[in-house]
Amino acid sequence: MDIGFIGLGIMGGPMARNLVEGGHALFVHDAAQLPVAIIEAGATACVSGREVAERGEIVITMVPDTPDVEAALFGPEGVAEGLSPGQLVIDMSSISPTATQRFAARIGALGCDYLDAPVSGGPPKAEDGTLTIMVGGAEDALARARPLLELMGATITLIGTRNGDGQVAKVANQIIVGLTVEAVAEALVFTAKAGADPAKVRAALLGGAAASRVLENQGGRMIARDFAPGFRAELQQKDLNVALSAARELGVVLPATAAAEQIYNAVRARGAEKDDHISVLKVLEDLAGG
Amino acid sequence: MDIGFIGLGIMGGPMARNLVEGGHALFVHDAAQLPVAIIEAGATACVSGREVAERGEIVITMVPDTPDVEAALFGPEGVAEGLSPGQLVIDMSSISPTATQRFAARIGALGCDYLDAPVSGGPPKAEDGTLTIMVGGAEDALARARPLLELMGATITLIGTRNGDGQVAKVANQIIVGLTVEAVAEALVFTAKAGADPAKVRAALLGGAAASRVLENQGGRMIARDFAPGFRAELQQKDLNVALSAARELGVVLPATAAAEQIYNAVRARGAEKDDHISVLKVLEDLAGG
Repeated sequence: MDIGFIGLGIMGGPMARNLVEGGHALFVHDAAQLPVAIIEAGATACVSGREVAERGEIVITMVPDTPDVEAALFGPEGVAEGLSPGQLVIDMSSISPTATQRFAARIGALGCDYLDAPVSGGPPKAEDGTLTIMVGGAEDALARARPLLELMGATITLIGTRNGDGQVAKVANQIIVGLTVEAVAEALVFTAKAGADPAKVRAALLGGAAASRVLENQGGRMIARDFAPGFRAELQQKDLNVALSAARELGVVLPATAAAEQIYNAVRARGAEKDDHISVLKVLEDLAGG
Repeated sequence: MDIGFIGLGIMGGPMARNLVEGGHALFVHDAAQLPVAIIEAGATACVSGREVAERGEIVITMVPDTPDVEAALFGPEGVAEGLSPGQLVIDMSSISPTATQRFAARIGALGCDYLDAPVSGGPPKAEDGTLTIMVGGAEDALARARPLLELMGATITLIGTRNGDGQVAKVANQIIVGLTVEAVAEALVFTAKAGADPAKVRAALLGGAAASRVLENQGGRMIARDFAPGFRAELQQKDLNVALSAARELGVVLPATAAAEQIYNAVRARGAEKDDHISVLKVLEDLAGG
């Protein structure tokens, strides 16, 4: 099938490659970079989102933030200018659920279908095609998208048939992951400053009520002091801000999420925003006198 | 062996019963209640901590908070008045690590050994004798205690040979559990207010980076709206305050723990402090307009 793909970064790049390897013809564009690797893998470069939409029957977007999706879809020379009725747009970025509803309505007005299908799992699972994909949108649109999604993800869940529902699940995921990373960082800094051994405490806690993927993975990397991304701090802060901004629109109060988000300002202040989000540990260590 | 046991509440009661069933002679006292059930099970009631210490070779305390341990050990007619050199005191309560160091020093000055051995797992695991026990103190004292601890717990970890290290691990546990409960509550209230299905979102998230014991257990009970304890909100708040108060002594900054702790003031304001700690969900729902 002819597929359009916009956004070929650390996630979009390997996702697109899995589509090429699955036998599809890819028409790609990235606003920031010439997507050399994916073109070498057999994709065709396009000069604009408009051209991507003219050449791809289904158009996938995988860009950093809500304004990037808006620009890719509705900006000058954007996807909307190239769409014809009957096409399908799948946004796999992690963005605002409320903005997603507005984007879906505008795409719908062009006679096209829209799915929000954000992912979790990070670059390793993007490479392996084993992402978790959370979908919001009509069942028939998902049926059409499923063969493509199966090349990129191991688990595909229709969260709800309303556009935005996939993004709601992703926001919920990021609230939990972001706060659990903060929780583990606070616990391990407390442990060290109280004179006990963080590695031993983590090992003991993994057997009980505090057990989590985050304590296992990110907790292990905190103890190993491995701050390489992984999931960049600036993207975690972006996701927490997606949560806080949607919460503002919805009238939902997220006090601990708000506290955790603030720490990322300090991560930025020390120039560590490209490091892994476990860098909140260093901020808490500095606050406790290093 | 002759064992003294102080504090026969929802946790101490079943823990003491497991010692009786293990063949030990128990000498028990509880400042708040006549411990009828454990006496029917074969234990001997004592009028004071002093009598408990006079009759038990090893004395175990399992009381709610730091001042309760202080009162049991060092108050009038307390354990310290009845101890003779060579005895062992095991505090299994969840209390301040820094206060624990002071209590251990005072018990040490009487020629006795001290272990801090707080537990996690809650009433069901106290009943089954399958608690997780986190120990701080000398290895030979632990060797002496181990046959008793094995009647109460499935996992016994020596966190460190310094008194207080067990309590540090318990504080770390409660920071992580308390914040993860708050995280799951914020995520599920956000989900519901955004119009998606919390049960579906939870199920999807259990397969990914947000997976945790808390999302599985407490998250499931939030969706089932089962607010029966479990772990009472007032005890979770007490544990978070143990963390915040020790953090103050140690110069450690715990911003998200502090935010989560505040919610429990609202749990109290609605009279729900005897309910399970997942009652933070109701507070967040009310804040979002019910």
